[in-house]
Amino acid sequence: MADYHKPDQQTVQALRNIANRLRINCIKATTAAGNGYPTSCCSVAEIMSVLYFNTMRYRPEDPKNISNDRFILSKGHAAPALYSIWVETGFLKESELHSLCQVESTLEGHPTPKQQFVDVATGSLGQGLGVACGMAYTGKYFDKSSYRVFCLLGDGEMSEGAVWEAMSFASFYQLDNLVAIMDINRLGQTDPAPLQHHVDKYQRRCEAFGLVVGAHVWVISRAFSQHENQHTTKTAEDKLGWHAKPLPKDMADAVVKDLQARITSSSKRLYPATPIEDTPPVSLRNVRMPSAPGYKQEEKVQALCKHTHLTIPISQHSPHHTPLTISTSPCTRQLVSVATGCAARDRNVVYASTLASFFARAYDQLRMAAVSESNINLCGSHCGLSIGEDGPSLMSLEDMAMFRAIPTATIFYPSDGVSIEKAVELAASTKGVCYIRTSRPENPIIYNSNEDFHVGQAKVVYQSAEDKVTVIGAGVTLHEALAAAEMLKKERIFIRVIDPFTIKPLDSKTIIENARQTRGRILTVEDHYYEGGLGEAVCSAVVNEQGFTLQRLAVAHVPRSGKPNELLKIYGIDREAICQSVRKMLSGSANAK
Amino acid sequence: MADYHKPDQQTVQALRNIANRLRINCIKATTAAGNGYPTSCCSVAEIMSVLYFNTMRYRPEDPKNISNDRFILSKGHAAPALYSIWVETGFLKESELHSLCQVESTLEGHPTPKQQFVDVATGSLGQGLGVACGMAYTGKYFDKSSYRVFCLLGDGEMSEGAVWEAMSFASFYQLDNLVAIMDINRLGQTDPAPLQHHVDKYQRRCEAFGLVVGAHVWVISRAFSQHENQHTTKTAEDKLGWHAKPLPKDMADAVVKDLQARITSSSKRLYPATPIEDTPPVSLRNVRMPSAPGYKQEEKVQALCKHTHLTIPISQHSPHHTPLTISTSPCTRQLVSVATGCAARDRNVVYASTLASFFARAYDQLRMAAVSESNINLCGSHCGLSIGEDGPSLMSLEDMAMFRAIPTATIFYPSDGVSIEKAVELAASTKGVCYIRTSRPENPIIYNSNEDFHVGQAKVVYQSAEDKVTVIGAGVTLHEALAAAEMLKKERIFIRVIDPFTIKPLDSKTIIENARQTRGRILTVEDHYYEGGLGEAVCSAVVNEQGFTLQRLAVAHVPRSGKPNELLKIYGIDREAICQSVRKMLSGSANAK
Repeated sequence: MADYHKPDQQTVQALRNIANRLRINCIKATTAAGNGYPTSCCSVAEIMSVLYFNTMRYRPEDPKNISNDRFILSKGHAAPALYSIWVETGFLKESELHSLCQVESTLEGHPTPKQQFVDVATGSLGQGLGVACGMAYTGKYFDKSSYRVFCLLGDGEMSEGAVWEAMSFASFYQLDNLVAIMDINRLGQTDPAPLQHHVDKYQRRCEAFGLVVGAHVWVISRAFSQHENQHTTKTAEDKLGWHAKPLPKDMADAVVKDLQARITSSSKRLYPATPIEDTPPVSLRNVRMPSAPGYKQEEKVQALCKHTHLTIPISQHSPHHTPLTISTSPCTRQLVSVATGCAARDRNVVYASTLASFFARAYDQLRMAAVSESNINLCGSHCGLSIGEDGPSLMSLEDMAMFRAIPTATIFYPSDGVSIEKAVELAASTKGVCYIRTSRPENPIIYNSNEDFHVGQAKVVYQSAEDKVTVIGAGVTLHEALAAAEMLKKERIFIRVIDPFTIKPLDSKTIIENARQTRGRILTVEDHYYEGGLGEAVCSAVVNEQGFTLQRLAVAHVPRSGKPNELLKIYGIDREAICQSVRKMLSGSANAK
Repeated sequence: MADYHKPDQQTVQALRNIANRLRINCIKATTAAGNGYPTSCCSVAEIMSVLYFNTMRYRPEDPKNISNDRFILSKGHAAPALYSIWVETGFLKESELHSLCQVESTLEGHPTPKQQFVDVATGSLGQGLGVACGMAYTGKYFDKSSYRVFCLLGDGEMSEGAVWEAMSFASFYQLDNLVAIMDINRLGQTDPAPLQHHVDKYQRRCEAFGLVVGAHVWVISRAFSQHENQHTTKTAEDKLGWHAKPLPKDMADAVVKDLQARITSSSKRLYPATPIEDTPPVSLRNVRMPSAPGYKQEEKVQALCKHTHLTIPISQHSPHHTPLTISTSPCTRQLVSVATGCAARDRNVVYASTLASFFARAYDQLRMAAVSESNINLCGSHCGLSIGEDGPSLMSLEDMAMFRAIPTATIFYPSDGVSIEKAVELAASTKGVCYIRTSRPENPIIYNSNEDFHVGQAKVVYQSAEDKVTVIGAGVTLHEALAAAEMLKKERIFIRVIDPFTIKPLDSKTIIENARQTRGRILTVEDHYYEGGLGEAVCSAVVNEQGFTLQRLAVAHVPRSGKPNELLKIYGIDREAICQSVRKMLSGSANAK
């Protein structure tokens, strides 16, 4: 940002006018809504004015233009300030502000992608800078373009560790196309931000994390630039107690009147600088694996999903299919935020992979990815207790519950090398958050390389005309179910085995149809806790089927260290446990045969 | 830590011998287990030796002594080093190390509270220092005792933002009884740690976060003290590629032989310093509210659970019932870690409260609280879409899914002021992670102040002999169900309404018995996504009941901003939606009357 020039006096006054009009609009809008954070909005008035009318390069009539500078309002509760600035650009009508937060309005309490000028939703504090890192990384390394990324943070969120993870990332990858602006207004939700107005302390922290204050980071408290001398404390006079409170009508009127008096009547009209149009167009359609999976039948492979193994073929296919591998793992929060940033404006098909258990750290980022309507693809490896010796701290036994409760999520749970590759390929063209759950143990290949897979389509992998129970497993438990089928066959007990392939959406139709052929008897078995996983998904699918019986095997307690097979046995999700449950279901029912 | 004296030469040699014996034991144990991180263990050998035999004050025969210094191995993958040091103290037998990671052993891959000398489980990197903060906070402010807290971190986890949140906390609360020791060995999982061996950079970061290097923080790379000159790089010669790999037998033998040669035969015997016994005993039994709830019937209150309102009465009752309120909110990760630390060794009954949506940030901390067998109590306020205008970023619609998949969790979902106070009281004596889910809208009081509540016991709050459908709601949806009951009554349609009170455990018995009286018809309605919440819990409870029909109302998509009542209506979980569903269930069934 070396090209920053001191604006002339007329420009400065015009920027001041914009800032004060923005304040007026924010106060009016939040008072009308009876909701919002007017003091937080007023605090960023000068910052927004200078950014949008003196610094940033963009087309105001085309907020999604691929060459525009990007802006992320990490302190999302200042959303009305963002809306007001787009009133200034002419993109929004001032009248639209009056319906702020109303159900019929697209101007929500915090920024959401319902607005074209919002790339990612914010409002859960501390996430904006990580996403901005992803956008800047894409700009610098994939797009190799001139657009820059600006991210405005509040001091409240500077306490969030995710911000410092993002700082590390920005300095490690030398993202000189990223600017983080910190609005230090001291006022937090209930107490003052811990560093109060000590801009020097913030600066020292940023510098210790490798960022150049003044270039990568602007820490702003007393004035936005040398030309501004107005304290950017929040309007209600730096007092605590006004956060998250709209001003009452009479107070609002008085403040508005005061602000109006500060606006000069005749003023220079300001226009934003036009972007440098050097961003290449990208098509993310028809992403395919370069070749069919090349496994031999009966070959045993780890059903993992490592970037080195699977996603790089896709990435070689096109530079815009981006497997993410971040040196500073295990910062999974940061991984997910950066992935979301890389996927913004459809610049990349993004895959981010790490240990399944690590995604628990990023659950808030995943929630927000759904609100952002993001299309990220995540691979969680080493799921469940079948990781073995490392013990419960690294066993992901709640990840299906997590991802099932993400409304935009698709959950792939492939059980062999072929179906993993198909899952990776399908994820590229599946909207929303895709999660691919993979397992550590080596297991045989089940499918032919040319087997056709679809989202929401289960596979019957073992069957006969005499089947008595439908067993549903995935990953290691599908292989246990297949082994159980062979064992039970020797006792002349026949079971049907189903691979659901995707847990969400679940192929209820195939499950119900097959279960009807086994007199409604279903047994689910999963390497996951009982709650929220495969078993409950099946439960929801069949609860209103009359005459059905559902038995479930899953992990009931925090497990311990041990060899994978020993743990499957101890926690009752191995072939023996399946055989026992099947026998019990049949002996318990009067019409077993 | 001003009392640190330079040890004499004999002591230094004895400490060296301990370090090398520790290395030998770690290499042998991990090679025997065929699993583990021997290089990470060897890297901390000198640190552990000096801490346990020159610095810490504790009773080696009584690791849980309340006056002992505390130690947290945040880099939990060095667990064998911790086990080996307790062999040195005489608490463990050397032979126990041979069964490391085996199912029959209590020496797991990462530290768990199966061992008396482990207060909290570690292994998910970046969490130890936050927990240590909670223990140090307790030592300084509640116990007012001399014991100190030592926390050993690896450089890999220094990339985790949670570590910097903890640093902020430690400096803000001036925890001079806490020492963070950083083992800078450069070697991460796949790539070098981003700051490599640059101890100065780590020091600068710590100082920027307000910690005094040398006092609060020891950053250790080249040598542990002036007396040691041995590079603490990991054994396999600072090479990447040996992380998470036990040495093969022949290599292990060679390294052990080399280490044995460095141990001097006759050596001073070292004993740890005894603790200063000034820690008061605490009893956490029979925690009760000081008085019964004082609401008037029909009084409308926000069913919130703020420390100011509810938990402070308990805390006044005894200084060791601690409601946590942390200035640097919204760092919920840190809040949960600190709570876990405060609850360790049964020093406090801890309540930590924040917005329900913020707990998504701390899901990994919650998982680990379960592995740690922690008894923390968490209050999540403003749940669901009924928060209204702030929009989806702050709407917690997945928290029940999250907490249900925590094996040690109890989920309270109180629906009025009385039941909230009862939930807070019951949580104090309920083991495991307690979660109290509360709502923003004001609603009338339902229960008398002397109503008796129990974990896992639902309440029938509306009934008649002619009931046709059993409706189950909680929080706002329970009030909607009650309103629906009044509306339907006018159509001569009678419904039974159940308040489950706890979602986990769920009172299946009461639900099934009542539903039988309404011909198996159940309708659940919840301010949560469809997956993993109340509806699926009920589904799991009744799936094998013959002749039952379960209909569910929940939130299907990412919601938007709006007034709470409008949103309840739009997303189909309000009284009208309940009435419609009930009518449909009755019209759809042949034997409706």
